[in-house]
Amino acid sequence: MSPAPSSVSDLIEIEQIKRLKYKYLRCLDQKLWDEIAECFTSDATAAYSSGKYAFDGAEAIVAFLRQAMGADSFHSSHRVHHPEIELTSATTATGVWALEDVVIDTRFEITIRGAAFYEDEYVKVDGQWKLRHTGYRRTYEEMQSRKDVPGLKLTASGWTGGGRSELEA
Amino acid sequence: MSPAPSSVSDLIEIEQIKRLKYKYLRCLDQKLWDEIAECFTSDATAAYSSGKYAFDGAEAIVAFLRQAMGADSFHSSHRVHHPEIELTSATTATGVWALEDVVIDTRFEITIRGAAFYEDEYVKVDGQWKLRHTGYRRTYEEMQSRKDVPGLKLTASGWTGGGRSELEA
Amino acid sequence: MSPAPSSVSDLIEIEQIKRLKYKYLRCLDQKLWDEIAECFTSDATAAYSSGKYAFDGAEAIVAFLRQAMGADSFHSSHRVHHPEIELTSATTATGVWALEDVVIDTRFEITIRGAAFYEDEYVKVDGQWKLRHTGYRRTYEEMQSRKDVPGLKLTASGWTGGGRSELEA
Repeated sequence: MSPAPSSVSDLIEIEQIKRLKYKYLRCLDQKLWDEIAECFTSDATAAYSSGKYAFDGAEAIVAFLRQAMGADSFHSSHRVHHPEIELTSATTATGVWALEDVVIDTRFEITIRGAAFYEDEYVKVDGQWKLRHTGYRRTYEEMQSRKDVPGLKLTASGWTGGGRSELEA
Repeated sequence: MSPAPSSVSDLIEIEQIKRLKYKYLRCLDQKLWDEIAECFTSDATAAYSSGKYAFDGAEAIVAFLRQAMGADSFHSSHRVHHPEIELTSATTATGVWALEDVVIDTRFEITIRGAAFYEDEYVKVDGQWKLRHTGYRRTYEEMQSRKDVPGLKLTASGWTGGGRSELEA
Repeated sequence: MSPAPSSVSDLIEIEQIKRLKYKYLRCLDQKLWDEIAECFTSDATAAYSSGKYAFDGAEAIVAFLRQAMGADSFHSSHRVHHPEIELTSATTATGVWALEDVVIDTRFEITIRGAAFYEDEYVKVDGQWKLRHTGYRRTYEEMQSRKDVPGLKLTASGWTGGGRSELEA
């Protein structure tokens, strides 16, 4: 398993790689498609859901994300945990992360919840860490119809509302 | 976007700011209202839920939290992820965090689940980092009636039980 | 509460302790029972769910985990947050973590969701941090029958499938 860091410079590199991952996920859930493109090398590859959604090149990856997650009805929360990042050279690294994700799509009236483990490859280009490969394998995923749930109500939306709750305190 | 840290002292400051946030959230979910007050400057401001719940001064913030979340029927889990902390001077910093929260209120028989992004401002006073401003904007929030869910049962409570599961293994 | 780190060596020790916890949790959700045993001292103790599930010795702990979580029908996601790790000597430390966990058991057709706070004790043996004690207290836990939920479907499994979603994009 990935050895822990043993120097200041290791810690700094690892923190920079974490920031890359956090930026990627923030851009994903905030639909910042131009900014998310900065996270990848141009020849990056992705293999989401054990390769069910596989893409070659940053352009193809971002086009997929934009198409799959761009709609205002699509509300997502992708959260990663437990970074085990291994520096494999001065400019390469690997990372394992635990993912927890929720999608609420009001157009299709579905909720999807899942858990997975990411396995990433990073490369440092011109002083910036980038994703060269990203992908995950599901521990589980479930889908639920929202219209079959009595007393379920979306009470805030960052897309069709102002990110403000409609609930009374 | 927030630049990553580039020195040991940056790393230490950032770790101290994270601890402040973790303490704040632990106190929130454990109803430690006196201890949570230590997390804020006296002139701190809060703008929860895109400003729907806005407060001026630590006293007003803590009074709100205590009133809104103090009841034994109120079970909450506020978890933050993906810290992008930027040190803006020796004694000031900003932070973006991804929030995932769950509230189960057995009195009103509701569950609330949500996701948001926090934007915080921190200030170092007498060697201690404090929250000068905190607030978040929802990506989504949903409420569900618990009494309409067949086969749903609270099996442990830290407030009305001893934090011990009633489930049989 | 736990003082924040104040030196490089503190930061490195804390990162190593975090890695231990991440390995423990990855092994838990990936059913890596031999590898998880490496996380404990041989005389480790555990007190899960406020001591409802209490064990003495690594062997007893791992035997419990394997028995409780080993089935292919058991899908789990244990995610920890907010590490407040205190180094109490060169070879001992304590840690508080916020836990969020989900279990989907397709055999019993149940979902269990919960939140808790872990309190751990760590010890460094031959240069490796190990768990000497682990345990948590629930903020809440709930169980739901899956067969009573119309329109709920498991769409990926890392155990009975290949960790690949069956959903159409």
